[in-house]
Amino acid sequence: MTFLDMGNIPRTITFNHEGAMSATLVDQRKLPAKLDYIETTNWSEVVEAIKSLAVRGAPAIGAAGAVAMALWLSDARDSLQGADVIASELKRVCAFIAGARPTAVNLQWAVSRVEAASLHALGRRGVLQDALEAACAEVDSILEEDVRANRAIGANGAKLLQPGSAVLTHCNAGSLATVFYGTALGVVYAAAEQGRIGRVYADETRPVGQGARLTAWELSRAGVPVTLICDNMAAHLMACGRVDAVIVGADRIARNGDVANKIGTYGLAVLAHAHDVPFYVAAPLSTIDMSVPDGSGIVIEQRSPREVLPDPIEGVDVWNPAFDVTPARYISKIITEKAIWSPGELSMRL
Amino acid sequence: MTFLDMGNIPRTITFNHEGAMSATLVDQRKLPAKLDYIETTNWSEVVEAIKSLAVRGAPAIGAAGAVAMALWLSDARDSLQGADVIASELKRVCAFIAGARPTAVNLQWAVSRVEAASLHALGRRGVLQDALEAACAEVDSILEEDVRANRAIGANGAKLLQPGSAVLTHCNAGSLATVFYGTALGVVYAAAEQGRIGRVYADETRPVGQGARLTAWELSRAGVPVTLICDNMAAHLMACGRVDAVIVGADRIARNGDVANKIGTYGLAVLAHAHDVPFYVAAPLSTIDMSVPDGSGIVIEQRSPREVLPDPIEGVDVWNPAFDVTPARYISKIITEKAIWSPGELSMRL
Repeated sequence: MTFLDMGNIPRTITFNHEGAMSATLVDQRKLPAKLDYIETTNWSEVVEAIKSLAVRGAPAIGAAGAVAMALWLSDARDSLQGADVIASELKRVCAFIAGARPTAVNLQWAVSRVEAASLHALGRRGVLQDALEAACAEVDSILEEDVRANRAIGANGAKLLQPGSAVLTHCNAGSLATVFYGTALGVVYAAAEQGRIGRVYADETRPVGQGARLTAWELSRAGVPVTLICDNMAAHLMACGRVDAVIVGADRIARNGDVANKIGTYGLAVLAHAHDVPFYVAAPLSTIDMSVPDGSGIVIEQRSPREVLPDPIEGVDVWNPAFDVTPARYISKIITEKAIWSPGELSMRL
Repeated sequence: MTFLDMGNIPRTITFNHEGAMSATLVDQRKLPAKLDYIETTNWSEVVEAIKSLAVRGAPAIGAAGAVAMALWLSDARDSLQGADVIASELKRVCAFIAGARPTAVNLQWAVSRVEAASLHALGRRGVLQDALEAACAEVDSILEEDVRANRAIGANGAKLLQPGSAVLTHCNAGSLATVFYGTALGVVYAAAEQGRIGRVYADETRPVGQGARLTAWELSRAGVPVTLICDNMAAHLMACGRVDAVIVGADRIARNGDVANKIGTYGLAVLAHAHDVPFYVAAPLSTIDMSVPDGSGIVIEQRSPREVLPDPIEGVDVWNPAFDVTPARYISKIITEKAIWSPGELSMRL
């Protein structure tokens, strides 16, 4: 049995609103070299942190977006007057924050929750302080629910793994991708405590290296045996019989069970299928977007060529989609905080 | 039609033996930032260039190994005496050079050719100068044959592509992987001259980046439209319908048509199969090893973890196989200088 030290993993996002309101975010751009934090009272700095990938991972950017909303309201208290002005500005800011990154639905979902709670409170008496308090309470709920959901995802998903399993994961759907504990790695942590994890193989996940920099780092800090591979080694690893299951997170799940996740996920799913390796997606219910019928309706974020090729070569183009869509047929199970479902079950269960 | 400028691509290996004997190698570790050459009269520097990947690519390391043999003989002329001593040392050095890298059979093949030619000449009169002259002639042949074979591979393979094709390639099986012109990219160059290439997608090919550093560089210098992608984007690119054919090189082809090539090739082949994209392997006959019945008999070189993770993370292991094996069933055609064959045909034709 693995001795797990979850206390060695920092909380990704902390929202402080006793006294002066502020956010504390792990600055993931500096990992694994340095564990550093962004502490800010400025909502637009939080949005910048989302855009620059200082905070990333669908649940974490949702939580960060929610915190940004509360910080904006706190600012607005001093600068804006009149409930109508505030309500209209709040909606504008909500749309702006939700648009910081397009693919993960959690951002839009979390920001909308704070918007709705604030507008509801504002509507009662037209007092901004009410809206701010409602926003803070909603942000607290979002953060607490996230950790609770991750623990439940972990408990549910662990049952799918045999003792001593070798698990392959892609990108970072770990504690760092959430407020704490993680989704795909939540399953790993819960399973490790039950002796079900022999080793985790982490894809390095080019171009940003979330696997090499974040997954490898947090697993090793928690005490889980971890081996880093390049993305293009996964097929050979499977052919060698060294993978018992693939577990990844998700940025948006369509109603039919198609999953948008970090670029490379789709290829892994095809490879897992070819090697009879089960392919699991672990995500909270907030990642499921019932308004999107299938993966073709999910916007795929295109990012800067410089992420792939920092020093451009004359005459060389770069293609840098940040996500891809895995069709439901390649997904064995979707693990949520509520239950484990086949992708086809989502439309019946939700 | 693409205007090709092959004159803009340097010859990878030049062997000079008029006057003082020397080798000139493109130092591929410095590309694409700088086109620099290693000029040396020292055979062990050439072996070091092979080990350090200053020269890489199956046909190129074969040619470099042959050159190293000739340089050793030139040294031996001044330091060794007696045909028996020389013959026995020659065999020892041949084995040493052939062992510089284990997977590509071309190295062993080329070094053995020079060994046989030298020993044969030495056997006639016991005069070292005869062995040296025979070695030089053999090296010249190997280098000339390589370029001729690549041109023939290109002419043969071009016929497989429709006008304006989008081709995906992995690693560098280009001019830089050979003496000149290339194998997989030989097909691209020949096809481009016939208007059959719309665009080449180059996998960056972690961890060493032969695609990002070498393939993208030489294609852009030749004037072929090229787009760089991360290895994990290939599946999404295929799903978008943007790949008409995959063409790769090979480091060793077994009798049954299984192909060892740069790590990641196998995964691409599985993905191509899943997307009904033809998967072509372009290689000279010298890459086919009829002594190996199937891919399970091919030694896969394991390289340093530092290639993957230059700054180690405490508690994080790294797996770094440099090659993988693609089973014959995933390969549409093998393109050689002699003909285009299905993998299953090799055992009948050769």
